[in-house]
Amino acid sequence: MNFGIVAKVLGNLLVLEAAGMVLPLLVSIYYNQHDKKAFIICIALTGLVGFILTKIPYERNNIKIKEAMAIVSLGWVTISVFGSLPFIFSGSINSFVDAFFETVSGFTTTGATIVDNVEVLPKGILFWRSFTHWIGGMGVLVFTVAILPALGVGSFQIFKAETSGPVAERIVPRIKDTAKILYIIYLAITIAEIVLLSLGGMSLFESTVHTFGSVGTGGFSTRNASIGAYDSSYIQMVIAVFMMLSGVNFSLYYALIKGKWRDVVKDQELRFYLAIIGVSTILIALNLNTNLYKNIWESLKYAYFQVSSIITTTGYATTDFDQWTTFSKGILFLLMFIGGCAGSTAGGIKSIRVLVLLKMIKRQILKVFHPKAVIPVKVGQKTLSADVLNGISSFSMLYLVVFVLGTLAVSLEGVGLVSASSAVAATLSNIGPGFEAVGPTRTFSSFSDASTLLFSFLMLLGRLELFTIIALFTPGFWRDEIRI
Amino acid sequence: MNFGIVAKVLGNLLVLEAAGMVLPLLVSIYYNQHDKKAFIICIALTGLVGFILTKIPYERNNIKIKEAMAIVSLGWVTISVFGSLPFIFSGSINSFVDAFFETVSGFTTTGATIVDNVEVLPKGILFWRSFTHWIGGMGVLVFTVAILPALGVGSFQIFKAETSGPVAERIVPRIKDTAKILYIIYLAITIAEIVLLSLGGMSLFESTVHTFGSVGTGGFSTRNASIGAYDSSYIQMVIAVFMMLSGVNFSLYYALIKGKWRDVVKDQELRFYLAIIGVSTILIALNLNTNLYKNIWESLKYAYFQVSSIITTTGYATTDFDQWTTFSKGILFLLMFIGGCAGSTAGGIKSIRVLVLLKMIKRQILKVFHPKAVIPVKVGQKTLSADVLNGISSFSMLYLVVFVLGTLAVSLEGVGLVSASSAVAATLSNIGPGFEAVGPTRTFSSFSDASTLLFSFLMLLGRLELFTIIALFTPGFWRDEIRI
Repeated sequence: MNFGIVAKVLGNLLVLEAAGMVLPLLVSIYYNQHDKKAFIICIALTGLVGFILTKIPYERNNIKIKEAMAIVSLGWVTISVFGSLPFIFSGSINSFVDAFFETVSGFTTTGATIVDNVEVLPKGILFWRSFTHWIGGMGVLVFTVAILPALGVGSFQIFKAETSGPVAERIVPRIKDTAKILYIIYLAITIAEIVLLSLGGMSLFESTVHTFGSVGTGGFSTRNASIGAYDSSYIQMVIAVFMMLSGVNFSLYYALIKGKWRDVVKDQELRFYLAIIGVSTILIALNLNTNLYKNIWESLKYAYFQVSSIITTTGYATTDFDQWTTFSKGILFLLMFIGGCAGSTAGGIKSIRVLVLLKMIKRQILKVFHPKAVIPVKVGQKTLSADVLNGISSFSMLYLVVFVLGTLAVSLEGVGLVSASSAVAATLSNIGPGFEAVGPTRTFSSFSDASTLLFSFLMLLGRLELFTIIALFTPGFWRDEIRI
Repeated sequence: MNFGIVAKVLGNLLVLEAAGMVLPLLVSIYYNQHDKKAFIICIALTGLVGFILTKIPYERNNIKIKEAMAIVSLGWVTISVFGSLPFIFSGSINSFVDAFFETVSGFTTTGATIVDNVEVLPKGILFWRSFTHWIGGMGVLVFTVAILPALGVGSFQIFKAETSGPVAERIVPRIKDTAKILYIIYLAITIAEIVLLSLGGMSLFESTVHTFGSVGTGGFSTRNASIGAYDSSYIQMVIAVFMMLSGVNFSLYYALIKGKWRDVVKDQELRFYLAIIGVSTILIALNLNTNLYKNIWESLKYAYFQVSSIITTTGYATTDFDQWTTFSKGILFLLMFIGGCAGSTAGGIKSIRVLVLLKMIKRQILKVFHPKAVIPVKVGQKTLSADVLNGISSFSMLYLVVFVLGTLAVSLEGVGLVSASSAVAATLSNIGPGFEAVGPTRTFSSFSDASTLLFSFLMLLGRLELFTIIALFTPGFWRDEIRI
C-alpha cells in the first residue's frame, strides 16, 4: 500500500472541500446569518489539514487497484468528517455522530436526516447540507478524475472503483475529457432546473437547494414537509421530472448531444427503467384511487412524484406515503431496491442489474427443458460473459445479505420489522425516508449512536457499491500481497 | 406431449391415494367417528376415477422431460383435489377452496391451516390431514419412483424433476433401489419417533399424528396450541430433534448405514445447517433472555424448538413466537428462506444453495483485487461449474421475485406488510405459520378465496422448486416443440 499517494489525494480532496465551503459562507454573509464564523473556521481547518496531507512525500505513478479503492473509500469518510464540522461549529447539530451521519447522508446523496426541525437552521448550513448532495451526486468520481491527472498518475482504476453500475464504460477514451463532459451535462441540468423552479415562483435560494437535492438524487429540503410544503403542481412536477432525468445513465445524454438518438431510444436499461416508473405509477394510482386524494388525476400526480423520488433514491415527498395502502407501500419498498440506472446519481441495485437478473431467470426456465442448450444472456446486441453474470448475481445477493444483517442489527433498537428493514433499505440504497419509524414525516433522530453509525456505514456501502468498502475489511488488504 | 402416459400415471396415483384413505377409515371405525361414511365415499370415488384414467390407451417408453414435469405438477394438484374430498364430505370444511388449500398444505408438507378449531374435527379427518404430510414428506418422489418402473418406463427424469435441491444425486445406481432405501429410512425414523413420543405419555394416536407432522416437516397438529399444548419438555425436545433430523439430506443416513461416518461428518451442507441452527438458537435465547421465560434454559429450550421448526419448514410452535422481539422474529424470518438441506423433506431455498451463494459472494470480493484470477467455487472436493452456479443464483433470485410478487398480491387484502410478506414466505417455503395476521395462534381463514388459491399455488411452487411449475406456463410447453 502506497500510503503517501493516498494521503496526497485525500489532502487535495480536503483543499477542494474547503474551497467548496466558500459558497455556503457567501450565502451566510448575503443573508447575514449567524453561521458565518463556523464556515470561516471550517474552511481554515479543512484547508490546512488538506494542505499538510499533500505535503507528505509520495512516489509517482503508483496507484494500483488497492490504492484506488482506499482513496475512494477513505475519501468519502474524510470529506464527511470535515464536512460535518460546520454543523457542529454553528451549533446546528450537537453530537458529532449525528453531524457525521447528516454529512455522510449528504455526500452519499441519501437525504436521511436526524434534524427534526430543519426550518430553524441558518441558511448557510441549509445550503451546505444540500450542496453536499450536489458534490456527492456526480461523485468524488468527477473530483478524483479531475484531480488525479494533475498528480500525473493514471486514473482509470479510480474511475473503475467509483462508477456506479456493472459496466465501467468510458464515454470518450480519455478520462479527463469524460470527467469534463459529465461535469458540463450535470451543470446544464442543474441550471435548467434552477431556472424552471424559479419560474414557478420559488425563491432562488430554495430553487438552488432543491435542485441540488434532485439532480444529486439526494433529498434534503429546507422544509420539514419536504416538497409537500409547496402547493404548486408545477413545482412538484418539475422536481419529479428532474429526479427521473437524474436517474438516467448520463452517458445517454452525451449520446443525445452527439445526435445518437437511436442508441438512446433502443437502450434497454432506459426502457426498463421508464417501464417500471410507468407501471408503478399506474398501479399505485389505481390502488389509491380516490380514497386519499380528490380525484384520480391527483392520485396519479402523487403516485408519479413518489415513484420518481423512490426509484431514483432521492427521497423527496409530496405526501405522507406511509399512510398509503400496504400494496402501494409494497411497490415503493420494491423500488427502493431496484434504484435508478447505472452511471446516474441514483443508488440501489440499479435497473440494469435487475434487468439482467430477470433475463438470467428467464434463461433458467428455458433450460429446464433444454438442459444442454447454450442460451446467451444479452443486453442489446452484447452477450454478457459468465463472469459478468456471476458478478451481477453475487452483487445482488450481497446487497440482500447486507440488507438482512443490517435489519437484524437495527431491530435490536426495539422498533418493528417494517421500521428496521425500511430504515436499512433507505440508507443502503441512499434514499432517505422509509416507513413507520422512519416515514417521510419522521427522522432518524430516535436511534442510538450505534445505529446512527451503522446507518452511516450502510450509506457508504451502498454508494460505493459494496465491494469497494467490504474489500477494505478483507484480511490482507492492507498487506502488500493477498493470498487467496 | 404424450397425454396418455400422463393420464396413466395420474390414475395410478389416485388408486394409491384411495388405498391410502383406508388408513383414516380404519382409524374412524376404531374410534367410532362420524367421518366413516365420508371416507368410504371418497375411497370409492378416488379409486374409480383413478382406475378409469389408467385405462386410457398410451404408448410405452415415452416419458420425456416435459411429460415428467407435467406428471409431477399435475400429480400434486390431482391428489390434492381428491384428497380434499374427505374434508368436504365429512362436513369438516365447507368451502372447496378452503378444503383444497388444507390438502395442498398437507401434501406440500406446509402445515398452514384454515381450520380455526382443529380440536372439534373427527379423528379420521385429523389422521388423514396429517397423513398427507407423511405422504407428501418423502414426496410423490417415492410413489412415482415406485410406480413408474411398474409401467416399464424410464424414471430418472421424474426423479430429477422431483428431487429437492440442486444436485440430483442417485444414492445407488438403480432408482428402484433408491426409492426403497429412502422409504425404509423414512419408515424407520417414523417408527422411532412414534415410540419415543409414546414413551413420553402421548397417546398412540397423537404420537402418530405428530410424527407425521414432524418427519414430513409439515406441522399439522391435533391441538390449536400446536406442541405448546403438551407441557412436557421431553415431548417438545423429541419433536424438536426429529424435525432437525428430517431436515437433513436423507442420503447421509444411507451413508451412515453403509458405515461412511467420515463422509457424513465432513458434509459441508450438514455442517452449515447445524451451524445455523446452533447460532440462531443461541442468538434468540440471549436476545429473549429472561424477559419472557423464567430462566435462560427455558429460553434456550423455546428458541431451539422454534429454530428447528422454522428452518426445517415444519411450523410447529411451543410458544406464541409472534410475541418475541423484532430481532428474534427477524432471525426466524431469515430461517424461513434458508430452509433445510437438499434431499430432505424440508422446503425453502435450501441450505446448500445458501452456502453456495455465500461462497460466490466471497469469490466476488476476492475478484475485486484479482480481476483476472480464476477462483473456483467448491463444495467439499467438488468444483461447481458456471452452469450450476448460474442455476443456483437464478433459482434464488426467482424465489425472491415470487416472494415479492406474492407479497404485493396478498397486500391487496389490506393486511400489513409483515402479515402479507410472512404469509407468502410461510407458504412458499412450506412452513405454515408466519407473523401477525398469520402468527402461530392465528390461521389462514381470514383471507379471500383469491388469496387462498394464491397461497395454494405458492405452496406447490415452493414444494416443486419453482421451475417445474413455472415451466408449465411457458408458451409452447404444451406444444410438441419449443422455440427459444
